[in-house]
Amino acid sequence: MAKATRGYRIGRWLPAVGWLRSYQKEHLGGDVIAGTVVAIMLVPQAMAYAMLAGLPAQVGLYASILPLVLYALLGSSKTLAVGPVAIVSLLVANAIAEAGVADVVTAMMMALTLAAMSGILLIALGIARLGFLVNFISHPVISGFTSGAAVVIGASQLKAVLGFSIPRSANIFETLSYAASHLSATNFVTLAIGLSAVALLLCWPRLIDVALKNTRLASSLRAALGRAGPLVAVLIGTLVVTGFSLNTRAAVEIVGAIPRGLPAIALPMFDLEVWRALLGPALLVVFVGFMESVAVAKTLASKRRQKIDPNQELIALGAANLGAGATGGYPVTGGFSRSVVNFTAGANTQLAAMITAGWILMTVILLTPLFYFLPRAVLAAVILVAVSTLIDVRALTKAWRYNKADAVALSVTFGIVLILGVEAGILTGMAISIALYLLRTSRPHIAVVGRVADTEHFRNIERHRVRTVPTILAIRVDESLYFANTRFLEDYLLAAVADADEVEHVVLIMSAVNFVDMSALESLETLMDELRDAGVTVHLAEVKGPVMDQFERSDLLEHLAPGRVFLSTHDAIEALSLAEARVESTATTGEIGSS
Amino acid sequence: MAKATRGYRIGRWLPAVGWLRSYQKEHLGGDVIAGTVVAIMLVPQAMAYAMLAGLPAQVGLYASILPLVLYALLGSSKTLAVGPVAIVSLLVANAIAEAGVADVVTAMMMALTLAAMSGILLIALGIARLGFLVNFISHPVISGFTSGAAVVIGASQLKAVLGFSIPRSANIFETLSYAASHLSATNFVTLAIGLSAVALLLCWPRLIDVALKNTRLASSLRAALGRAGPLVAVLIGTLVVTGFSLNTRAAVEIVGAIPRGLPAIALPMFDLEVWRALLGPALLVVFVGFMESVAVAKTLASKRRQKIDPNQELIALGAANLGAGATGGYPVTGGFSRSVVNFTAGANTQLAAMITAGWILMTVILLTPLFYFLPRAVLAAVILVAVSTLIDVRALTKAWRYNKADAVALSVTFGIVLILGVEAGILTGMAISIALYLLRTSRPHIAVVGRVADTEHFRNIERHRVRTVPTILAIRVDESLYFANTRFLEDYLLAAVADADEVEHVVLIMSAVNFVDMSALESLETLMDELRDAGVTVHLAEVKGPVMDQFERSDLLEHLAPGRVFLSTHDAIEALSLAEARVESTATTGEIGSS
Repeated sequence: MAKATRGYRIGRWLPAVGWLRSYQKEHLGGDVIAGTVVAIMLVPQAMAYAMLAGLPAQVGLYASILPLVLYALLGSSKTLAVGPVAIVSLLVANAIAEAGVADVVTAMMMALTLAAMSGILLIALGIARLGFLVNFISHPVISGFTSGAAVVIGASQLKAVLGFSIPRSANIFETLSYAASHLSATNFVTLAIGLSAVALLLCWPRLIDVALKNTRLASSLRAALGRAGPLVAVLIGTLVVTGFSLNTRAAVEIVGAIPRGLPAIALPMFDLEVWRALLGPALLVVFVGFMESVAVAKTLASKRRQKIDPNQELIALGAANLGAGATGGYPVTGGFSRSVVNFTAGANTQLAAMITAGWILMTVILLTPLFYFLPRAVLAAVILVAVSTLIDVRALTKAWRYNKADAVALSVTFGIVLILGVEAGILTGMAISIALYLLRTSRPHIAVVGRVADTEHFRNIERHRVRTVPTILAIRVDESLYFANTRFLEDYLLAAVADADEVEHVVLIMSAVNFVDMSALESLETLMDELRDAGVTVHLAEVKGPVMDQFERSDLLEHLAPGRVFLSTHDAIEALSLAEARVESTATTGEIGSS
Repeated sequence: MAKATRGYRIGRWLPAVGWLRSYQKEHLGGDVIAGTVVAIMLVPQAMAYAMLAGLPAQVGLYASILPLVLYALLGSSKTLAVGPVAIVSLLVANAIAEAGVADVVTAMMMALTLAAMSGILLIALGIARLGFLVNFISHPVISGFTSGAAVVIGASQLKAVLGFSIPRSANIFETLSYAASHLSATNFVTLAIGLSAVALLLCWPRLIDVALKNTRLASSLRAALGRAGPLVAVLIGTLVVTGFSLNTRAAVEIVGAIPRGLPAIALPMFDLEVWRALLGPALLVVFVGFMESVAVAKTLASKRRQKIDPNQELIALGAANLGAGATGGYPVTGGFSRSVVNFTAGANTQLAAMITAGWILMTVILLTPLFYFLPRAVLAAVILVAVSTLIDVRALTKAWRYNKADAVALSVTFGIVLILGVEAGILTGMAISIALYLLRTSRPHIAVVGRVADTEHFRNIERHRVRTVPTILAIRVDESLYFANTRFLEDYLLAAVADADEVEHVVLIMSAVNFVDMSALESLETLMDELRDAGVTVHLAEVKGPVMDQFERSDLLEHLAPGRVFLSTHDAIEALSLAEARVESTATTGEIGSS
């Protein structure tokens, strides 16, 4: 019993204990195949994304060994594939560029420092259980941000495909216009290699399908071949450049020497200035990386009725980034495409990720000399094809059709990313979506309701044929009451009463009010007093339990008097019109008596 | 007809046309008395508040003539009393201090430039109909801000009461500790004058009550006498200083020479640097001033079933401030205490304000020499007594009892005002109240519900004794669904389903959902797909009309299938358990058949 409890405890902090203890033999096949397929994808992608980040190719490979093992031990997802991803690589590139770093050694040091900082921040957020903070970034903002970042990444690869250098700019239109006005500098051999690689990558899955159509290959081998496009492009590109000596004869840029063997254990820079400069970029890496990772992990887990613990994810991704920082890597996170491949290739546990890490380790030890002649244009092609899937035009049309405010948030985020950069884009997007939400809730839907035929149902008088009592105004508010909308309600009610002299009772129907904050409470109290002074009594109906509990901790019910709290709108209207009738009949009787 | 329409139109932009045309003789008495009573209060207050703003006393008087007339012509309130107020004066003082202005002429120029800028901003907000923006400042933040500003104002008057100069500091504790460590520099004659004035001001209303107890004075004279405390203090203080030559013999600071006659028409500074420096303070003046003014105007209007048009108020207050800027004044707004006095003294129309302006004009032309020997300590006493009513400790205890989040917003705003100043205070307060609101709506109340006895009512299983069906999970979400809470719902549902293997149907009860944004829509779609993959069907119940309209503009209903939309929870549970029973009975029949 005690042992089981201890096992449970360790398992909570080290999920690997759980799946390693109860590892089932029949899971091994799927894990080995998935781990291998992911490795086949990862080798070229890791090098390409490192290049995108402005780092030497080996940094991407180094970031694909220890981080994977650490996530495998600590992560709550069984199938997430961690490693370098495109958008985080762009953030790293920005951070290095903004710090004004020119030499590659400092850039590498900054990148691993950024990874270590991100790791620390992620773990801190995890321990403080603040994972929910990413929820404040809305989908349309993420969508606009992702599409924008993909376009920025694509533009950043123009130089590698065209074969001439383009000065860095946060404004993508400057980049494009510079490229357009310098097209004469194009290295056509490089361009040909890049375009061929793009074509190969785009056609590869279909080629494999057609080629293997009538063969009876094991599905695992089929999966591996289907994902080998980038690796094949790398091999062909390297062979072509080597065979024709294109690096010397046509000035095609190549990857060059990659040190063979294990990465040296490198310590991050402990320079306060550097840390201060990297804090913004690190926060961005943390938020964007965590957001992407947790979304993928959840989608995959739910398909097998498994659970993801967002705070455990923060800790696991934090450890992975600390690992990247300690072994010459750069920031990593759970990537969408490789995780999906891992899942569909049959990964059952994080053993698959350990196998991937093993393959990358072997590559680093044995195969790096093979990449010497690898043309950078091929890596650019790998990036271009990977990010092209991130541009989501449909999201905009969908948002536009569904809810204009969301479409505005999406478009503005996208536009700002292109013009002012990713950082400004995501911050503006967040501000806009919060502002639009507040704006919407600040003008709640308010309906004057009346009775439907002879039922106990009350509906909007503008939408339905209903009966009303002239002395009673029944009003339903379709929103919780808080500071931003309380004056709106006040204005609405005062105007409604000022327009209708005969009104003597206002019934506020609170069925859709989930909360009443202090501002709204005070407004309601004032409103009740003011309307009483003007000869109108306010009543409440259908107040929810938690809201009524709140009211009982305040003076509201004293301000309400002689108004009452009715269980239902029906009760309210019945009781008030009855009282009305009684007063009238008394008046009539009185008249008769005096006549 | 055309004439009436034109009249209506003009009346809309120039509300004075309305009440001047239909002016009733019997309103004149009230207007004259109220206008006079307000003038009696305003003369000393205007000079005191100008001093608080760091300006010569006459600036306060100049700001109490044309601005009142302009508001009277344009304002939508019949009883609002416009003029210098304490908190706006503090904002002006801060703006002048921050700009590093030392000489009084530049300070006056800055003050009138600030008034002109505020006027332009107010009118612009009015034309753009952006008056609703002030709604985003919550009551607790206003309360914390007002109390904090009152304390800051009080501390700023210490120097006038103690009779030695105290260096300006945004942090009130610095001011207090400086004062405490320099108490030996106290001018005791000044202190005696200041404390006597405070005592007089505090006791005056009761003195008048007692003195007039058995007299048969007209209520109008009684009202005028009751409000004459500050004026009496000013007169006594001036007489004492003049009589004993305290200004020369005891170094008591006096107001000094006030130019006699009309203010010269002065043009604001048209210096881009100055305008840029004053933009922040001007926005603060606009927001704080408008907030205070519109709150008072509304409260008073509602007591007589009159209406306030917030956008017309912006335009009227804007004109008043432009007027202040053109006649040597400084920013003005509708003040709380004088408006209440105006109202209770019987003001019927804005003619009262015009009469007040007439009295102030006469004072400026004829009486200013009388104020030469007026001790500044008396004006400080007028300020201290006026702002002491603004400190509202009860608001904190009330908020604490009612809603902790509001109490936090109030306390933090108050604290930041004291430590970092009014600007930082109100901005922090706004950020905190928005953050707390988002935080609350990001974790909505979600209840699993079951059927109450044999009724059609469904209630929280944790609060009531209810019956549930093991294969059906009925869940009610008590909040609109939007980006910040959509992941919370997702986590809740996935966890609930992962914990209960037997669940086959989830019924989402949407009765309290007023809106579903794009993020929430996508989450719901994903959730439906994911749960379907896991063998669970999602259904919806009690979807509101507007939300259903939204859904029909999206693909949600396709993702929902085979799930259905039920009118009521009752319908849903009935239909689903019936289907369940049918499947079970078929299974049983099958078994019987095969046995």
